[in-house]
Amino acid sequence: MSLKLTILGCHSAVPTVNKQQTAQLLNVNERFFLIDCGENTQVQLRKYQLSFQRIHHVFISHLHGDHYYGLIGLITSMHLLGRKKELYIYAHAPLKDIINTQLSAAKIDLNFPLFFHVIPDDDQVILYDDEDIEVTNVILDHSISCSGFLFREKKYQRRIIKEKIEEYKVPYDRISDLRNGIDFINEEDEIIANDILTNSNVKARTYAYCSDTRFCLDIIPKIKNVDVLYHEATYSHDLKARAFERGHSTAKDAATIAKEANVNRLIIGHYSKRYLDLNILLSESREIFSNTFLAHEGDILDFDLI
Amino acid sequence: MSLKLTILGCHSAVPTVNKQQTAQLLNVNERFFLIDCGENTQVQLRKYQLSFQRIHHVFISHLHGDHYYGLIGLITSMHLLGRKKELYIYAHAPLKDIINTQLSAAKIDLNFPLFFHVIPDDDQVILYDDEDIEVTNVILDHSISCSGFLFREKKYQRRIIKEKIEEYKVPYDRISDLRNGIDFINEEDEIIANDILTNSNVKARTYAYCSDTRFCLDIIPKIKNVDVLYHEATYSHDLKARAFERGHSTAKDAATIAKEANVNRLIIGHYSKRYLDLNILLSESREIFSNTFLAHEGDILDFDLI
Repeated sequence: MSLKLTILGCHSAVPTVNKQQTAQLLNVNERFFLIDCGENTQVQLRKYQLSFQRIHHVFISHLHGDHYYGLIGLITSMHLLGRKKELYIYAHAPLKDIINTQLSAAKIDLNFPLFFHVIPDDDQVILYDDEDIEVTNVILDHSISCSGFLFREKKYQRRIIKEKIEEYKVPYDRISDLRNGIDFINEEDEIIANDILTNSNVKARTYAYCSDTRFCLDIIPKIKNVDVLYHEATYSHDLKARAFERGHSTAKDAATIAKEANVNRLIIGHYSKRYLDLNILLSESREIFSNTFLAHEGDILDFDLI
Repeated sequence: MSLKLTILGCHSAVPTVNKQQTAQLLNVNERFFLIDCGENTQVQLRKYQLSFQRIHHVFISHLHGDHYYGLIGLITSMHLLGRKKELYIYAHAPLKDIINTQLSAAKIDLNFPLFFHVIPDDDQVILYDDEDIEVTNVILDHSISCSGFLFREKKYQRRIIKEKIEEYKVPYDRISDLRNGIDFINEEDEIIANDILTNSNVKARTYAYCSDTRFCLDIIPKIKNVDVLYHEATYSHDLKARAFERGHSTAKDAATIAKEANVNRLIIGHYSKRYLDLNILLSESREIFSNTFLAHEGDILDFDLI
């Protein structure tokens, strides 16, 4: 199963020409899961050639504008471009009225079904699952109800051996079969055994998204041992008091959570606009958790390559 | 009095990387009036270095998203950046709830007063006036309640003679006094009579904004003889039936209105994305009304120079 994360925006609060607000796209075997949707996300999707008609599930962490003001525009464009397939939105309760009131004002009767699923404020539940993946909410500690999301693969799939794929000239459209243990038959009708081309027992991958939140030890059991943790790091630690007051974390906070949760890799983002040089945040985090990376707009993280 | 129009966006329906939705800024003596506010308008204002804290009045023509989805983000950013001065919004009735519901969901208690003025559906009234300018609504014929806006200067000011300004080395900060009839005193304490530097009896200027609308003869008496008319021209005339069905105009429609209303200059915009070459629309309009121009993002129209 392929698993790729694209950063569509990673800045906080007020957008500028070069600072796009939070949005991420998780590609699970070519099915798209949108995580947060700051203003202008639909244009960011176009910029990175990610067809938004392939998004079927949208997860909104909380109802601050830098995380959802782009959603109504995305839904409207899906409608105008003729979408028929259903769209599922997972968010806190008020979003349903916000969206429906705007559609009603425009007299838009959507030509696709739109389903809202309310994220509980006080309970961690399975929001979504199918044969490939399960998504649960993670209760965060912000100034309003806020939820992180944990994506967990359900299958133990085989991992591709790149060199062998090239050596045996396996076409791209056979890769998925290989991951599911199927042998490869080449153009000469020779059978190439699957275990020549793949490794066995690759563990199911996990991705945890945690924005926005104060330093919150309670999330550690929930995100323990994940492959990749995105954790907000709005401020550097000299502004710890401001971070706490505003319901945010510092880079040191994010790194401490990553270390205590024993994650493999930490990505930080949701930067305050005060940081012209984001390496301040990166170096602060790496002092505690060395495998930290900065989120940048346009970054693509392929879970097969980490 | 200076009067300048900046086009922040001039495309319809679905935004793309290079196609910003409708928004315009009218600068009346350095006081900013925002006309419509498509998604991402706050970033467009930054791009063209137009401080959005100087916007005091926002006019929203109708509640289709390509004309207002950027407003909630703009208001939120004004708040986050510490605005204290009041903001006045002129729009159809449902917008008040749409904005307030979103502010409430985010628990934002604005640190500036926000006043809503409802544009009447069936009556043309003075929406705003002060000593410099008067704004009235123009009832348009669209698929939902939709209003154009007519901006009319109230003062008859003197017009600057550019060559004389250069000849007498008049500094920029004296220009406003000259327009109001005051003589210029140079560094040698010589008095330069105002009528050497300006022409008299410049008529008050007018700007009419008409988007979105079907071809609508009823608007002609309202916009008669304006200096500049912005009129939507979503389609070329071979798609007249589609234009009518969707509540829009063709370039020929816009030109006919401009001609019948005897305006000085016509600007067309709100282009359908089907037109890769906008000259199709321009030439169609110019066949009927030669003084037609295409709106382009970033265009600045100085009413002193037309």
